[in-house]
Amino acid sequence: MARIAVIITDMFEDSEYLQPAHAFLQEGHTLTHIGIKAGKTVTGKKEKNPVFIDKAVRDVKVDDFDALLIPGGYSPDKLRVDEHAVEFVRRFMESSKPVFSICHAPQLLITAKTLQGRKVAGWKSIKQDIINAGAEFIDQEVVEDGNLISSRSPADLPAFIAASLARL
Amino acid sequence: MARIAVIITDMFEDSEYLQPAHAFLQEGHTLTHIGIKAGKTVTGKKEKNPVFIDKAVRDVKVDDFDALLIPGGYSPDKLRVDEHAVEFVRRFMESSKPVFSICHAPQLLITAKTLQGRKVAGWKSIKQDIINAGAEFIDQEVVEDGNLISSRSPADLPAFIAASLARL
Repeated sequence: MARIAVIITDMFEDSEYLQPAHAFLQEGHTLTHIGIKAGKTVTGKKEKNPVFIDKAVRDVKVDDFDALLIPGGYSPDKLRVDEHAVEFVRRFMESSKPVFSICHAPQLLITAKTLQGRKVAGWKSIKQDIINAGAEFIDQEVVEDGNLISSRSPADLPAFIAASLARL
Repeated sequence: MARIAVIITDMFEDSEYLQPAHAFLQEGHTLTHIGIKAGKTVTGKKEKNPVFIDKAVRDVKVDDFDALLIPGGYSPDKLRVDEHAVEFVRRFMESSKPVFSICHAPQLLITAKTLQGRKVAGWKSIKQDIINAGAEFIDQEVVEDGNLISSRSPADLPAFIAASLARL
């Protein structure tokens, strides 16, 4: 069973956390919610669905986990200003372990300077940012490029979850 | 007196609309609120401060205005997926008329491909996006580069407003 880190903060897109999390737990994988501050509760854009932050990102290592989930919404915009979050994501991308990225999640990958030459799906608002980061923006429900599995939006969740589970 | 277009939609950073708008009106300038759909009311991140959209961006021309204000928050992320909004902003940037950009507003300038070689201030979360767009990210309260006047955050509003008023 895999140990999955979920990097998350306020204003996440609710379904992009809830649905993968549910699927992972159902298959017997474990989740560790990491964020800026341990012990804090963060909430999604719908202002319900509280998520308890188990560990601060500054206190965890890539070695502690087998995969990383980055839900979208405005959570990645808030996480990308934290140097520890950016460094953790950069190290994860440089490992061979799977990174599951959906919607606005590539914003964090851009700040971590990890998208050069990669194929990525993401929310259409950040298409130009993805291209300017040196990546190829691919407009399909799920894109797999090495250890990076990415999707565009909540509508892609079934394909995103299936591709993610297949890597665990 | 100047005719100022404000391009805006839901989830704008409240103070980044309210304070410049108040200052412009006090000096006798006029405001036209443009957005995706005319006749709609949009609201800021605080879910108060309703703003009535006077005109759809697809129905206005740069010729109709003397300056453009782009408030920040998550409004620019929503506007940059609308091709008419992107095209309007592109034409405004290419005119010699002043563009007032604060916080996340450069996201719209990036999608409009107008930042190459420009000096820009903006919210720190989008620093890498601004750099990847070919611009120089300048970490100061207000930056003036040709017709582009830009600031980082609500804390910069006094300097942003003073620099903007000086251009009208």
